[in-house]
Amino acid sequence: MSGNVVIGQSGGPTAVINQSLVGVAETLRGQKGIGRIWGACNAVRGMIEDRFVDLTDIPQDVLDRIANTPSAGLGSSRDKPDADYCAKIFEVLKKKDVQYFFYIGGNDSSDTCRIINELANESGYELRCFHVPKTIDNDLMHNDHTPGFASAAKFVAQAFMGDNLDNRALAGVKINVVMGRHAGFLTAASVMGRRNEEDGPHLVYVPEVAFDEDKFLGKVDATYKKYGRCLIAVSEGIHDEDNVPMAIRLAAEQGHHVERDAHGNIQLSGTGALGDFLSQLVKSKLKISRVRADTFGYMQRSFVGCTSPVDAAEARAVGAAAARHALSGDVDGSLAIQRVNDQPYEVAYKRVELGDVAGKTRTMDVSHIVDGCDIADSFRDYLRPLVGELPVIETFS
Amino acid sequence: MSGNVVIGQSGGPTAVINQSLVGVAETLRGQKGIGRIWGACNAVRGMIEDRFVDLTDIPQDVLDRIANTPSAGLGSSRDKPDADYCAKIFEVLKKKDVQYFFYIGGNDSSDTCRIINELANESGYELRCFHVPKTIDNDLMHNDHTPGFASAAKFVAQAFMGDNLDNRALAGVKINVVMGRHAGFLTAASVMGRRNEEDGPHLVYVPEVAFDEDKFLGKVDATYKKYGRCLIAVSEGIHDEDNVPMAIRLAAEQGHHVERDAHGNIQLSGTGALGDFLSQLVKSKLKISRVRADTFGYMQRSFVGCTSPVDAAEARAVGAAAARHALSGDVDGSLAIQRVNDQPYEVAYKRVELGDVAGKTRTMDVSHIVDGCDIADSFRDYLRPLVGELPVIETFS
Repeated sequence: MSGNVVIGQSGGPTAVINQSLVGVAETLRGQKGIGRIWGACNAVRGMIEDRFVDLTDIPQDVLDRIANTPSAGLGSSRDKPDADYCAKIFEVLKKKDVQYFFYIGGNDSSDTCRIINELANESGYELRCFHVPKTIDNDLMHNDHTPGFASAAKFVAQAFMGDNLDNRALAGVKINVVMGRHAGFLTAASVMGRRNEEDGPHLVYVPEVAFDEDKFLGKVDATYKKYGRCLIAVSEGIHDEDNVPMAIRLAAEQGHHVERDAHGNIQLSGTGALGDFLSQLVKSKLKISRVRADTFGYMQRSFVGCTSPVDAAEARAVGAAAARHALSGDVDGSLAIQRVNDQPYEVAYKRVELGDVAGKTRTMDVSHIVDGCDIADSFRDYLRPLVGELPVIETFS
Repeated sequence: MSGNVVIGQSGGPTAVINQSLVGVAETLRGQKGIGRIWGACNAVRGMIEDRFVDLTDIPQDVLDRIANTPSAGLGSSRDKPDADYCAKIFEVLKKKDVQYFFYIGGNDSSDTCRIINELANESGYELRCFHVPKTIDNDLMHNDHTPGFASAAKFVAQAFMGDNLDNRALAGVKINVVMGRHAGFLTAASVMGRRNEEDGPHLVYVPEVAFDEDKFLGKVDATYKKYGRCLIAVSEGIHDEDNVPMAIRLAAEQGHHVERDAHGNIQLSGTGALGDFLSQLVKSKLKISRVRADTFGYMQRSFVGCTSPVDAAEARAVGAAAARHALSGDVDGSLAIQRVNDQPYEVAYKRVELGDVAGKTRTMDVSHIVDGCDIADSFRDYLRPLVGELPVIETFS
């Protein structure tokens, strides 16, 4: 088979998504049967609008700098293509003689990739179709972890290390809201810089456990009495016992419209509402005067200068692995990162079926969650090799 | 003169405030006439409660690690001592035979230092009293810049570099709220990573200029039409033409109590309210669907792993300079960082009178502000040597 290549970057950007783009492109360049290599601007959106960047001849040093730059260099999209949308995509792909399609993204994006692949099969259009994993949420099935997660986790860990020191210096209750719709992995990363029991975060709330206001207030009260302060990590996706996200309840109370994307996901980030609500709750119910809330927001996924080297290398390698699979024969699929060994840390990049990953969500094993409000050492052991060395800090004993 | 030493750290922590603490302590250790060197826990609060850390014999390698750790290692306080409070302080100082007092802090802290110095003079208590500058707000009189500012500025610059890339990938209006009560220096640092006209932040709002909602909406609309996106930096301290901070207006509208500290400052940080208000404003008035707001919050001053090397070195040096002045004779005062030369960049540490700094606020020269909503190249030239090299990024043209 010979033909041209299209690579797209979809969903929320990460600090290393360009590594995967470059990993695919540099592995394919110059290979037999590979023609032009195009990057689709804004993912499927650029594919229907015939907007592409030609990557075939970009000098390697430029590609290397792009690889080291956070966020999706090609631009992204949250569109979910329906039949009409896909028909337009195939029209463009045919016109451009594209036989290889790589889509870098999370579980919604892998579902988009699956739909395009199925429609290609149905319409008899020959297309090697690969999903390359990417998500700071770390919530893809069959993956030990996903590219983008470790860098975001490093950011969250270093932010909490600093905020713990800040909270020691000027005591009070501090709530930090971390990204994470259904999976608490990123929020759990907040504990990575803890050196002892006194270090915060003292309480960690993830979406894997239903959030109970009374229990929460009880824990905050007890922690504040014990340490004279309390640092709290909360996932933006926490929900009540009936599985209603706090974000929906708050929007209803405040008379705001709840935004949803094409995949049906509620808009959670880009507002301080959840943090402010929890802060007011603690202030009013516990009569603690100094209560503050911060929402980490988009910095977690795009901050320049806080990338995990392991994450960057794996994101590049998983793109290269997808390219090699596509060159190897008539296969489609998604690449999964699987941990082969713990010490020394070693991973393998395994092909799995698109349907095994698409639209499914992996959540954190409950064995990592302690008492509904803390994170076990088992999770720290899991995360340590991904995040790498954190800065050394020292305090007066 | 001979006696013991007390050093305190006051007000909001910074990434390099421990450098100044160590700079004072290591310069005094072993000097003639210097007895014990104590760190006051939680600033003046620890002084009245007789809570101190003995720094005299802490090994240098431990001090070095503490110096490199963000936030105030001794703990801080926002107390403003009145006559009774000061009487208690002197009681403790006399009991401990303290003759040297160093207070690391911003303009409120330098005023506290001035009050203590005056009361020492009035009561005939011999006390060499030095204020050591520190504030991420960069708002101390007679200083070219203040320790802590450059590291916070580096964080803000890198956050905006990343968020600009994120906003390129998934277009929309994005508002980021940056710390800064009266001075816009830190918010202005958001432009440091811009490479060309298309790069954001496209609009920058600082407290030096009154904020006008209609003008703001007009600029957002025009920018969005021009680039298909708009990234905005806003100081938390923006206020209307009558000098009423937006934060007060919002609290009144939402029926919240406005918190004030002992110095009369309104609580601005630790809430997403201003960002959320501006986001709703744009959404409702301009009918743009994707509008998001983040508030950088306490991360700006305490994030671990984003310190400016120049800032760290100067914070250490200004502490050492204060110690040398105190050893040199019967003087009191504040140390000011003054720029001696631009290329090569060079500073001097000059003693100024406490009264010249105490309680006064320096704001950004209006010549740095363009059209009320952007920052001039002159400010970038001023800030460049302080922040140092920013990470290299690359995008498809």
